[in-house]
Amino acid sequence: MTTRTSRRAFLAGTAGAAAAVALPAAARAEADSAAVPSATADVAVVGAGLAGLTTARRLVAAGHSVVVLEARDRVGGRTLNHPIGDGKVAEAGGEFVGPTQDRIVALATEVGVGTFDAYDTGNNVYVNGLINLKYSDTGPLGTAPPDPLLLADIIKLSQQIDLMAANFPVATPWTAPNAARLDAETLETWVRANSVNAEGIVGLLRPFTEALVGAEPGDLSFLFVLAYVAAAGNATNPGTFERLFNVRGGAQQSRLIGGSQVVAQRVASALGDRVHLSTPVRRITQTATGVTVASDALTVDAAHVVVAIPPALAARIDYQPLLPAARDLLTQRLAMGALMKVEAVYPTPFWRAANLTGQFLTVGGPVGYSFDNSPPDGSPGVLAGFVGGAQNLKWGPKPLAERRAAVLAQFARMFGDNRYLSPTDYFEMDWTLEEWSRGGPTAIAGPGTLTGYGPALRGAVGRIHWAGTETSDYWQGYMDGAVRSGERAAAEVAAAF
Amino acid sequence: MTTRTSRRAFLAGTAGAAAAVALPAAARAEADSAAVPSATADVAVVGAGLAGLTTARRLVAAGHSVVVLEARDRVGGRTLNHPIGDGKVAEAGGEFVGPTQDRIVALATEVGVGTFDAYDTGNNVYVNGLINLKYSDTGPLGTAPPDPLLLADIIKLSQQIDLMAANFPVATPWTAPNAARLDAETLETWVRANSVNAEGIVGLLRPFTEALVGAEPGDLSFLFVLAYVAAAGNATNPGTFERLFNVRGGAQQSRLIGGSQVVAQRVASALGDRVHLSTPVRRITQTATGVTVASDALTVDAAHVVVAIPPALAARIDYQPLLPAARDLLTQRLAMGALMKVEAVYPTPFWRAANLTGQFLTVGGPVGYSFDNSPPDGSPGVLAGFVGGAQNLKWGPKPLAERRAAVLAQFARMFGDNRYLSPTDYFEMDWTLEEWSRGGPTAIAGPGTLTGYGPALRGAVGRIHWAGTETSDYWQGYMDGAVRSGERAAAEVAAAF
Repeated sequence: MTTRTSRRAFLAGTAGAAAAVALPAAARAEADSAAVPSATADVAVVGAGLAGLTTARRLVAAGHSVVVLEARDRVGGRTLNHPIGDGKVAEAGGEFVGPTQDRIVALATEVGVGTFDAYDTGNNVYVNGLINLKYSDTGPLGTAPPDPLLLADIIKLSQQIDLMAANFPVATPWTAPNAARLDAETLETWVRANSVNAEGIVGLLRPFTEALVGAEPGDLSFLFVLAYVAAAGNATNPGTFERLFNVRGGAQQSRLIGGSQVVAQRVASALGDRVHLSTPVRRITQTATGVTVASDALTVDAAHVVVAIPPALAARIDYQPLLPAARDLLTQRLAMGALMKVEAVYPTPFWRAANLTGQFLTVGGPVGYSFDNSPPDGSPGVLAGFVGGAQNLKWGPKPLAERRAAVLAQFARMFGDNRYLSPTDYFEMDWTLEEWSRGGPTAIAGPGTLTGYGPALRGAVGRIHWAGTETSDYWQGYMDGAVRSGERAAAEVAAAF
Repeated sequence: MTTRTSRRAFLAGTAGAAAAVALPAAARAEADSAAVPSATADVAVVGAGLAGLTTARRLVAAGHSVVVLEARDRVGGRTLNHPIGDGKVAEAGGEFVGPTQDRIVALATEVGVGTFDAYDTGNNVYVNGLINLKYSDTGPLGTAPPDPLLLADIIKLSQQIDLMAANFPVATPWTAPNAARLDAETLETWVRANSVNAEGIVGLLRPFTEALVGAEPGDLSFLFVLAYVAAAGNATNPGTFERLFNVRGGAQQSRLIGGSQVVAQRVASALGDRVHLSTPVRRITQTATGVTVASDALTVDAAHVVVAIPPALAARIDYQPLLPAARDLLTQRLAMGALMKVEAVYPTPFWRAANLTGQFLTVGGPVGYSFDNSPPDGSPGVLAGFVGGAQNLKWGPKPLAERRAAVLAQFARMFGDNRYLSPTDYFEMDWTLEEWSRGGPTAIAGPGTLTGYGPALRGAVGRIHWAGTETSDYWQGYMDGAVRSGERAAAEVAAAF
């Protein structure tokens, strides 16, 4: 890779002074690149989250020159370590790994990041209307609550969903049996039609989908939900609803030592000056022989580009020539969920002494689901919770002090202990306010999206390739999916040279 | 309004040469505006479709200085006249007006554009599987086909929908009774649950929603459909399903003399050099005292800006500071429909002699609905059809010759006359390929969009105001809604001075 200041930059002042109001296209292109240095590489990668970094790492290993353009002033995308003192961190973004998430664990291992068990000893708390109970997730329902009013439905629906998710074509959900019908309804309508206590089950599903994807059961295509469940596995272990939901044996089983963002940081560190921060990409121009990737701070000429950002953000890049209609229309439909993570820090995780895991599940918000997010040594105690979907829309715009008070009051109420009201620190991360995420944790698909537009999700458009967790076959929406997508994109590009 | 070449443009060359790869934000802002002239005005308007032009016309009439920035090299947005020789045109975009569409008709009258009746004499043709019939829309069902297998369902569903759409809060659909439930399901699931011949009714709905909004029944929130139906009226005449669907007495009753785009052209002509073409807006920066609207060819400093483009395109502007999360998330969800208009020109509209209106409705595509699009004097004959939703996705990517042959063969088959195979001209307009529409005819809302994010649809964000047909209370999705939205936005801005 070579970096040079573009000759065009020196001409821009002159060209600009002579330009009339209606600049011809060529002059506009000159103006665009004014003052921006340029570089060349085999491959440009847009985004330095886990997907983009994995793509770059793989391609560099294969001997290609790579430039990574990251809009933020940091790497890691939807992973973010929040310092809590003494060199310790608590994650403000994606953090858990679990069985079948082989690729993120392999990458972490490669860069020397180990895992530890998420704290899960003792009882969970469940509060839903008149029902208030404590339960261990070592029971037959795992992390799902043994609510006597909903028990039969929970078991039946889980089994039905698992059955439908078995043998599901995770890479091509639109080819699933009966895909059109399944994609023409929402999770809510399907659940209502298949439950005894429909109102109760939909109510319980809310905190679940709010935490899982930042959305309500009525927002989600049922086909998308099946695809998401089916993706909670790998080629030898089909995904199940339980694996998605569970801590023990599930997607929330383990955490990464040093905080999840450290994986991205170490991969980026190995890539060195190939990674450019604060370089938001605005335009990708494709010709028969290459691509030009124009950002605010650097223009890269490359043979291929891998766009490794969420679909809704990929939509905001100006592609010339235009992308195929189906691709653009897809990115108009894959919206981000609405998710905030709130966290309170205490001198110790005192819930552990009361035989509590720190997990509660409840209906009504602001937090629907909480968990122990303390460092490996349990000091200090960190209690985290999700404010997602409708709860995010309700609570996000309120003043911090009001939201903080409501969250801490809820912690105290759920666990019956006023010590929760007085943390030593309180912080939150609302992913909907992030310019370069525009929501979280992942993109969701409403009805009609996958069957109508799904085939445009990961098919390369000439020299433009797509990565990002949303494009993964397994574990879409997770760190593991991001890594898998990067591996796939790198292989795709390498094969094209 | 004054136009001057920005002083910053002269500095850009120097700034650029000195810039390191990681340019500081201030230097990047300099680079962005390099070579672009600037202007000042009371109000900047983004988009010169009917919404933006109406906004500008109203504000100018109220004594304000206005600059309109239009990305295309023409005005009219989703209206577009296609020349067919002899100075005549056939519309390639929105074209019909009808009862209760008072505002587009008033605007047309103001600029000297009259209306004429859409040709509607004789029989319509309906083909659906074994059923093949001709019918007049003077019957009790209007334009809806009297299919004996579906008749009872058509009547029942129309009545149910009209009942639910009566007294509907068109400006705030999310406040409708039972809004959450209605917004958690699709038109398809609602229809299936309320029909005797569910499969048949969903099949018939496809060509209808494909032509109406470029989408499938399973793509649409049922609450959105109710809002759309309720919007097919005005303050004194509540919207009905029939008015939406009908030619006679409905939304397809009349056309504009000279072609619908002439209204926009005349409004733009009166605005003169306030309208700037080929100036796609890329960034809107808001301060306590004003806004800076940066396009490829002109930067405008104004007290207010009205963004009068579809939500999915408004999402692609870089707003600084960021818009509220709910607004951004809304624009991630309001996707454009997929619609193409195909038109064949014949020496005469020979279907008229066979007592045919030129309208057919059929299941299976490529065209679902056709109509007589001839000029007022009936010479030449123009037969137009819609290829929308799934049909658009299927047929859009095929070669023109293949699509043309399929369309003409369908025309011949539907009307039983091989003369349809040999037009003197054939043209088509695929709105999904338009860089500055990205689909058509309008934005659609899937489940969860309106109840979750709807309140952000038209509420101003400080000095940034929203217009466009999608933001209208009545006739959203139509030319009339565009005009109404412009009138509302202009009043909103005028009141803020």
